[in-house]
Amino acid sequence: MPDYRKKDLPVWEIRRFLEPGPVVLVSSAWKGRRNIMAMGWHTVMEFSPSRIGCFITAANHSYEMIRKSRECVINIPTADLISQVIRIGNTTGSEVDKFELTGLTPQPAEKVDAPLIKECYANFECKVTDTSLLKKYSFFILEVVKAHAATSPKYPRTLHYRGDGVFMISGENVNHRRKFRKENL
Amino acid sequence: MPDYRKKDLPVWEIRRFLEPGPVVLVSSAWKGRRNIMAMGWHTVMEFSPSRIGCFITAANHSYEMIRKSRECVINIPTADLISQVIRIGNTTGSEVDKFELTGLTPQPAEKVDAPLIKECYANFECKVTDTSLLKKYSFFILEVVKAHAATSPKYPRTLHYRGDGVFMISGENVNHRRKFRKENL
Repeated sequence: MPDYRKKDLPVWEIRRFLEPGPVVLVSSAWKGRRNIMAMGWHTVMEFSPSRIGCFITAANHSYEMIRKSRECVINIPTADLISQVIRIGNTTGSEVDKFELTGLTPQPAEKVDAPLIKECYANFECKVTDTSLLKKYSFFILEVVKAHAATSPKYPRTLHYRGDGVFMISGENVNHRRKFRKENL
Repeated sequence: MPDYRKKDLPVWEIRRFLEPGPVVLVSSAWKGRRNIMAMGWHTVMEFSPSRIGCFITAANHSYEMIRKSRECVINIPTADLISQVIRIGNTTGSEVDKFELTGLTPQPAEKVDAPLIKECYANFECKVTDTSLLKKYSFFILEVVKAHAATSPKYPRTLHYRGDGVFMISGENVNHRRKFRKENL
């Protein structure tokens, strides 16, 4: 399994990894229990505060854990973790411990009680800042309060879910910086 | 420029193209004017109704056009349109007509007055269903009321923005359907 060396990432820079739309693993903890879920329905919503919106329904075991603890960690797995991602998406935390199931390693976070997933390329520690959209839209508003990311490779090879068991794997990265006006980057 | 043959796509299947996180082009029309903006901050929020959430601030010329018309089209450009995407992101509709600027072709939609962009791989006609999150989060809730998608290739080669002028281009698609329980696909 991957063993990345990570450093702190300024929280307003998480869009570099989240905006391309990867499947993420959401880890949570509540009253001595922990869980991981796979999630593809998320978006960046602001640079500062570093805001993320994500869709998680009450059908997920993680829903109540995140809602009650008001915390979670957004972890970005790379393509070599595809088997673990599929297993996580195919089981429920009400029956199994997903860390034991997958062999992924929980690590203490700095600003939340939810665990980081060691083998993931990046880990974004999040506080839930708004639960008012849960009833109508199952939509959590999160703020990233601490971010960790691998230093190499520069960009991860990520999984992007299309539904129906099909994943797109991220391809090459191309830099067109000089074609942009600075204010539009 | 690409010339796709398209057919109707059931609106609950748009996640196949949107969930992987591509840059999209949002077209709008209001009082005889039209516009296109590039957008990377969006998420699927429900299958049925086919709901999308997206972040568009008042700094965008499209904001008032979408807010007032309560309509837009989400168009998915392929990687061969990268120059047009950058130009669209680098100019404002208050100064130029983005269709004239880029040579992209507006086509009549079926259920909204906003134009489809002919050269894009897919076009999702949307109604704005909730503007109550604009003040706090600049977040539009949309419902896809009609969807069109190219029949070939099966999956588009899309652009995924990382910020700072860097795009990730979508890579290979892998099918792991048989590893999933049906209810988790």
